[in-house]
Amino acid sequence: MGEAYGQLMSKMKEIETVGQIQGLLGWDQEVMMPPKAGPLRAEQLAWLSRTSHSMMVETEMGEVLSAAEEEGADDEITAANLRLIRDAYDKATKKPADFVERFARHKSKSIRSWAEAREKDDFSIFRDDLAEMIDLNRELAEYLGYDDNPYDALLDIYESGLCVAQVDPLFQGLRESLVPLIAAVGECESPDMSWVEASNWGEDAQAQLSHGISAAVGFDFDAGRRDKSTHPFCGGANPDDVRWTTRYDENEPFGSLYGSLHETGHGLYEQGRPRQLDFQPSGHANGLGVHESQSRLWENQVGRSLAFSEWAIPHWSKHFPENMEGVTGEMLWRSVNLIEPSLIRVEADEATYNIHIMIRYEIEKQLINGELEIDDLPDAWDDMYEQYLGVRSPDRKQGVLQDIHWSMGAFGYFPTYTLGNLYSAQLLAAARSDLESEQTLEEMWAVGNFAPLLDWMRSNVHERGSISTPADLIKEATGQPPSPQPFIDYLRNKVERLYNVTV
Amino acid sequence: MGEAYGQLMSKMKEIETVGQIQGLLGWDQEVMMPPKAGPLRAEQLAWLSRTSHSMMVETEMGEVLSAAEEEGADDEITAANLRLIRDAYDKATKKPADFVERFARHKSKSIRSWAEAREKDDFSIFRDDLAEMIDLNRELAEYLGYDDNPYDALLDIYESGLCVAQVDPLFQGLRESLVPLIAAVGECESPDMSWVEASNWGEDAQAQLSHGISAAVGFDFDAGRRDKSTHPFCGGANPDDVRWTTRYDENEPFGSLYGSLHETGHGLYEQGRPRQLDFQPSGHANGLGVHESQSRLWENQVGRSLAFSEWAIPHWSKHFPENMEGVTGEMLWRSVNLIEPSLIRVEADEATYNIHIMIRYEIEKQLINGELEIDDLPDAWDDMYEQYLGVRSPDRKQGVLQDIHWSMGAFGYFPTYTLGNLYSAQLLAAARSDLESEQTLEEMWAVGNFAPLLDWMRSNVHERGSISTPADLIKEATGQPPSPQPFIDYLRNKVERLYNVTV
Repeated sequence: MGEAYGQLMSKMKEIETVGQIQGLLGWDQEVMMPPKAGPLRAEQLAWLSRTSHSMMVETEMGEVLSAAEEEGADDEITAANLRLIRDAYDKATKKPADFVERFARHKSKSIRSWAEAREKDDFSIFRDDLAEMIDLNRELAEYLGYDDNPYDALLDIYESGLCVAQVDPLFQGLRESLVPLIAAVGECESPDMSWVEASNWGEDAQAQLSHGISAAVGFDFDAGRRDKSTHPFCGGANPDDVRWTTRYDENEPFGSLYGSLHETGHGLYEQGRPRQLDFQPSGHANGLGVHESQSRLWENQVGRSLAFSEWAIPHWSKHFPENMEGVTGEMLWRSVNLIEPSLIRVEADEATYNIHIMIRYEIEKQLINGELEIDDLPDAWDDMYEQYLGVRSPDRKQGVLQDIHWSMGAFGYFPTYTLGNLYSAQLLAAARSDLESEQTLEEMWAVGNFAPLLDWMRSNVHERGSISTPADLIKEATGQPPSPQPFIDYLRNKVERLYNVTV
Repeated sequence: MGEAYGQLMSKMKEIETVGQIQGLLGWDQEVMMPPKAGPLRAEQLAWLSRTSHSMMVETEMGEVLSAAEEEGADDEITAANLRLIRDAYDKATKKPADFVERFARHKSKSIRSWAEAREKDDFSIFRDDLAEMIDLNRELAEYLGYDDNPYDALLDIYESGLCVAQVDPLFQGLRESLVPLIAAVGECESPDMSWVEASNWGEDAQAQLSHGISAAVGFDFDAGRRDKSTHPFCGGANPDDVRWTTRYDENEPFGSLYGSLHETGHGLYEQGRPRQLDFQPSGHANGLGVHESQSRLWENQVGRSLAFSEWAIPHWSKHFPENMEGVTGEMLWRSVNLIEPSLIRVEADEATYNIHIMIRYEIEKQLINGELEIDDLPDAWDDMYEQYLGVRSPDRKQGVLQDIHWSMGAFGYFPTYTLGNLYSAQLLAAARSDLESEQTLEEMWAVGNFAPLLDWMRSNVHERGSISTPADLIKEATGQPPSPQPFIDYLRNKVERLYNVTV
């Protein structure tokens, strides 16, 4: 190890330590903090963020980084650390300080006007702030730099190396296959949800069910926690301290359980990070898309399978003996797989979800490139929903005002959700061909044997940290570059079994 | 405000912010942290502590502080801030870095050997480490400096300005009055505890009782929390985020409720700090003795009064309807005031508690001054217990090995517990003479009217922060320097009413 590289890594350890503390305070803010503590908590978080930022952008960091790059890399870990630190350093230093401040100030302002606009169902309240946020994102793209498309610079923030040339064909493939599939399902009869609607689903029993199922698929509660919060998330400090949350609705139990499985998936990834790379950038989980692949895997590919439903029935019955009387694994499976076009992204099913994302992606691309005017946005949104999902919002709050992301200045973030779905199907297909010699994965899940799949993800994804770029990680793990095909195949197969529909 | 003073205060704001974060992480560690997260949490806390320490001891801090002192102080706040920062700076810089490290290393070692010694009931396991800890404390006293007695330097760490010349007469007064009082009570019949022992006291109901009573005396749960932990404490980040804990024993409900009232007292003090002095040293709560006065006030002077017991009966009955059948306010009052010499400090009652402390104070003074040899310590401990409390430990673990403090290197800490008891009685007497024109305080408490007393503490103690030294604060609030007499009067009066004993 070179001398400069050693210095660099000890600087990174400090920055990482601050990040762990930020993770804990962020969790506490959502889960534990008393209401009046908000303003001083903001001071604490601002100090941590200033401290971490100045450690990253100080002149000495740039010098040590350059010196370490001069020393060169003899192995993939060193090369990955240098690549990741260079990327983070460039992203942090390319933005002028006054821009960072303008952006942060405008973000606070536009989150407020978005919330007001949504509450009053009036896009005009948010219009000017959104227009300015788009301008700020264009300015940001110029600072960060790009080859072809300014939107590429924004995509790259959330998933390193992602660009329009990569994403366009993925969404095109999805659109061509999913839109007719969803339309065909729309002609079919919906599954029987009466057993769900007829009962009350107590919060304590839901919590125990979620906890038990999370532990059964492999979440280590000695290195993490489950709590309740308004917006479910997975956070915490490090692989020994992973904290996920859920929320409860006593009218229906799926939101909490499948939310828990989703966050468990994120949590399993964090707990599976390569511990010999603690405090090194290459030891971090990979981009947002790969992270989402792990949450979607356990939530959907595993959790919404027939085998899983059959395995889970005794767990359900233990916590809800009366409600579950006469409910079979197949009834449960059909109920958790209701496919139905709807207006709200966060409530969408596996099939329609990606169409919600595709619409946002197309709109973002056009907004950033000046191909869509702000005043045409609300109707363009509704038109695309009608075109691709066959539904049209009766108001703005269920239309263009539904998501917080743009008010926060996060353009380029949405596509990572769909990448997660695509990656999860592609990874599962690869795991299947490695593991299914004597038993299918479904046969393992039916008896609660999730370890082989988790172990495969551990070796091929979790323990690889950020050593490769996201796209390379997928290629190394599956032998193929990212593709929409495994997801399309998975969904076609599922819809055929559920609705007897072939498209 | 001078320029240097402004710089100084913004440095202090940063240090204070780090302290708030440390407070949160410390709370989390005891209350929320999953078991495996310990080692990396230690890294986070070590980074915060290093960062805060280097901000305090950096050369620039010394220069800015001197320059601010040159500018001078026009008001009591500025004067107090300068005095407190000078004190903290001197304490931080007088110790050589290698000493700080040796001390920290030896502390870890001797906490372990103390724990082992206590578990195996074998003083010899701890002997050498304790001897070295005493030497380290003598060395520390030399670095910090003192006028008369090296032990003064150690007392001053925990309560600014405290010294043997102040503490000796307090303990002498206490000893002369309490020892015969306790002996006289020993001749009397014990109160009836059968109603307590006959019932099971469910944890949830205990938690609700504690919560309700804490809120009733004035704790603001919008600016704080109650949780469960192995060792009860009051911590958190700042006056908007005060977090106290308790523990539960289903065999008896007093430990939890009175522990809760104790921590509530600490919490009320924190919540009552002067908010215009946020981030300034003068806005902090005063020394440990004053802090303990507030916890003891609500736990004992208020909480163990007959009036409080009578007011509390409906709360008890609400949460424990069956257990409380036929229990009167007077029965409750007698049960929570059992006076009985015992071996264990943390379980001691109001009267005997201070004798436990007095014994430790005398022993510490002798150990630091070389008047007591380490090998004579265990028997000296037992002899003093026999002399003053009439009880002798059958083993070492209930004797000299019972407390963790010395293994942590905390010599000079114990006396602040008794100071708290003395201050609380002296403050209550002063509040009484200010407030009792139409009603006695007891008449107010009997109907749950705790606001007048809390308001008096707010104005005379809480809102005064650390503007005055602890001894001056007591003098300003009560018109008298710290004295044991109000506490002795209070206890004599109580014992007379409880046991019909006059000494």
